[in-house]
Amino acid sequence: MSGSRHFTQLRDLGVAGLEEVIGKASAWKKSAPQGKLAGRILGMVFFNPSLRTRASFEAAMLRSGGHAIVLEVGSGVWTLEHRDGVVMDQNRTEHIREAVPVLSRYVDALAIRTFSDGSGDQADEADVVLNGFRRYSEKPVISMESAREHPCQGLADVLTMRERFGQTKGLDVTLTWAPHVKPLPKAVPNSFLLSAAAAGCKVRVAHPKGFELTTSVLDEARAFAKQAGGTVEVTNDQSAALEGSHVIYAKAWGPSSASPDAAVRQDAWMPTKKHLGLLEDDGIFMHCLPTRRGLEVADEVLDDPRSRVVDEAENRFHVQRVILHDLLS
Amino acid sequence: MSGSRHFTQLRDLGVAGLEEVIGKASAWKKSAPQGKLAGRILGMVFFNPSLRTRASFEAAMLRSGGHAIVLEVGSGVWTLEHRDGVVMDQNRTEHIREAVPVLSRYVDALAIRTFSDGSGDQADEADVVLNGFRRYSEKPVISMESAREHPCQGLADVLTMRERFGQTKGLDVTLTWAPHVKPLPKAVPNSFLLSAAAAGCKVRVAHPKGFELTTSVLDEARAFAKQAGGTVEVTNDQSAALEGSHVIYAKAWGPSSASPDAAVRQDAWMPTKKHLGLLEDDGIFMHCLPTRRGLEVADEVLDDPRSRVVDEAENRFHVQRVILHDLLS
Amino acid sequence: MSGSRHFTQLRDLGVAGLEEVIGKASAWKKSAPQGKLAGRILGMVFFNPSLRTRASFEAAMLRSGGHAIVLEVGSGVWTLEHRDGVVMDQNRTEHIREAVPVLSRYVDALAIRTFSDGSGDQADEADVVLNGFRRYSEKPVISMESAREHPCQGLADVLTMRERFGQTKGLDVTLTWAPHVKPLPKAVPNSFLLSAAAAGCKVRVAHPKGFELTTSVLDEARAFAKQAGGTVEVTNDQSAALEGSHVIYAKAWGPSSASPDAAVRQDAWMPTKKHLGLLEDDGIFMHCLPTRRGLEVADEVLDDPRSRVVDEAENRFHVQRVILHDLLS
Repeated sequence: MSGSRHFTQLRDLGVAGLEEVIGKASAWKKSAPQGKLAGRILGMVFFNPSLRTRASFEAAMLRSGGHAIVLEVGSGVWTLEHRDGVVMDQNRTEHIREAVPVLSRYVDALAIRTFSDGSGDQADEADVVLNGFRRYSEKPVISMESAREHPCQGLADVLTMRERFGQTKGLDVTLTWAPHVKPLPKAVPNSFLLSAAAAGCKVRVAHPKGFELTTSVLDEARAFAKQAGGTVEVTNDQSAALEGSHVIYAKAWGPSSASPDAAVRQDAWMPTKKHLGLLEDDGIFMHCLPTRRGLEVADEVLDDPRSRVVDEAENRFHVQRVILHDLLS
Repeated sequence: MSGSRHFTQLRDLGVAGLEEVIGKASAWKKSAPQGKLAGRILGMVFFNPSLRTRASFEAAMLRSGGHAIVLEVGSGVWTLEHRDGVVMDQNRTEHIREAVPVLSRYVDALAIRTFSDGSGDQADEADVVLNGFRRYSEKPVISMESAREHPCQGLADVLTMRERFGQTKGLDVTLTWAPHVKPLPKAVPNSFLLSAAAAGCKVRVAHPKGFELTTSVLDEARAFAKQAGGTVEVTNDQSAALEGSHVIYAKAWGPSSASPDAAVRQDAWMPTKKHLGLLEDDGIFMHCLPTRRGLEVADEVLDDPRSRVVDEAENRFHVQRVILHDLLS
Repeated sequence: MSGSRHFTQLRDLGVAGLEEVIGKASAWKKSAPQGKLAGRILGMVFFNPSLRTRASFEAAMLRSGGHAIVLEVGSGVWTLEHRDGVVMDQNRTEHIREAVPVLSRYVDALAIRTFSDGSGDQADEADVVLNGFRRYSEKPVISMESAREHPCQGLADVLTMRERFGQTKGLDVTLTWAPHVKPLPKAVPNSFLLSAAAAGCKVRVAHPKGFELTTSVLDEARAFAKQAGGTVEVTNDQSAALEGSHVIYAKAWGPSSASPDAAVRQDAWMPTKKHLGLLEDDGIFMHCLPTRRGLEVADEVLDDPRSRVVDEAENRFHVQRVILHDLLS
């Protein structure tokens, strides 16, 4: 892999590292090495709920002969403070300055899920809880989604496209905003954008005004794209973006500004068969899951044979197995 | 086993299948095959609490060299929607149409616990969550209790009686209603009735008026009984039912009608030593657990040497190990 | 080890047993026997939250080839009643008289965490939930902290001191009370006192008036000290106690009387660098964790190289691995 002992962001891998992981994941899907993680323990720390992530990481350890210890912060596990210098007289019972090095003594790597706290782009960029784990852990840290990125999801997305289209260099793909009942974090759209760019795709990002991704992420994606032979374009015209694309990757995310354009009919952005119709003939639908049917994505899209969401989720297992092998053995 | 790739109801086994499982469980209690589930993973999905079920299933996997991944819906795991066609704008974050096939990609079988929602016999019969798992899972589905049945409990009950009495054909046993602070699901009484009938017992069902089991379950039990040489009789006279029985199987369950007979002194139905006294000399007391002492069953009964509740619970492990082997290997 | 088949209190080991465990833990830290717990299952039952305890016990089983099943009472697992003779018509759904023997049938040992209920010293001494597990379990019971003691913590503490100072006989150490937002249980101070005394330390216990440890624990510690060549002294003068000590072991605990001395400035008892300055040159700071920074212990102490809290927590793993081997193999 790359030189980083952690994997919490795509730049820990870079373009070459991504290619290596995708290649290995694809090969191991047919025939994987056995028992390579025998006796190894992954400590999984959740600040937020999970289904795919938890099951796929635990399965990846078990299928390789290793084990996972699952800890849910605040549910059976002490609540954790991450801010420096505070007097801990409120409801958080332990500081990550103690909890993280201690946990890292018992296990061979720590995987952590810590969502955006919703306080804005700047806080997401700082990603303080995740970076606290990187700082204080004595063992490799793997992200199971943090405020800024969900890097294993991004890798699974690339593997899914690679399987469908053989290669991804120059592939026209659209990442489109979708409606939701509440503002969701941007980690998944960020990671799809970064990974698709690093895989050489021509990425079109479509969203209503007021839902911009951060300059930091867009700039990083453009740098990856440049290196890998792809491009990154942003538009507020969903139909124009989908026209001629091979992939529609839909995802709800929250506004970048306090008052997004009130004139936008948000529900019109929900992918339907009409949207699928704008894709090329070999087009597919992708989403990281979970998704809310009838609100974020139409039933008819998820039930359509062009939907690849289950394969995409399965690929989480395959890319994570490679990441775990590379960091742990 | 039977031809069904799932095991969520007794009819997936049938009379011959039940005999096969009981025979194997009994033999393996003395000497079980080792390591037959090495590398296999059971995904356990809980919509409701558990103690015996969780520990006994996980132990059955571990003792055979396999592993279990435990997911508690709504606690660390996304809440799940099962209704078709709804706009998911409320508090459920993922549909089983996605969650179930995805989970089934990571594991070798899915075990599910999903209790009755208390909305009535018709909903229990439909058992929509369980049947959604059967429909959408790409791997075998095992019930850890659903709205209609708790089939592994029923098998453990038969094994417990078989151990005590050598055979169960023609054995007089009584399933009796017992009081509780709230209306409980009927899955356990249904499964005891179905399993005892399929094991050839002469089953007497005793309950106050207004607490009838469903016609569907009674009819199915009678069909099993006919095939296996047993009978099924229903009475509202608890003492008459116990007189001459070899087994008293007590369990609280909810009313079949909105207003059960107000004249019944429900507390008189709680098993005491007086009730044990009506049994044959070799009589035993059974209950699936958990039970509330002093309310559903008297202390003196649970502490009596005739109580087999701990052995009965242990037998959950033994029958489940067989079921898991049959479905997974 | 000792003759006891359980390990829930230091007197299950005694002075000789403690020495044996510490010696073995120290040796195994360099080179441990492999796979000695293959196929063994530890059932872990939590009535209270945990981080170190859960991860270190589970890791100890996994590193030795065994497994752990984790059950959280009241969260996914039925709530448990322990009082005898009550009519269970409230919110507890199962009695430990059933739950404990049943669980003990599925596993090879039961580990239990059950904190003080805060109702006073007498209840802590009785330790009814823990002792119910001892009574009803058919397999060895291990304490993961109960109302009276946290014996594995005490062993880890002795190992930490032994590593630092070579030997502990005659070593001057201070156990000091520290402030907190709420009254905490005494299990940890009790266990440090008992273990340090049994390891031959000269233990000074410092606390404000009104925060006395119980006579029962002090007497037991003095008996251990007498046997091991140590002493136990109690003072209300924190500075005098620390002067010339090699260890400051800080821990908050609740008042022994309803109205502790109001004149005491509790915050002055929080360990700072000034307190560390009173120690001998080779002095170290210890705490069981979790701790609240800036309230129970100053940041500058926890971040000081003299702090041994992470090593101390790591040692939980090492002593527990020995305990598990001794009880399970």
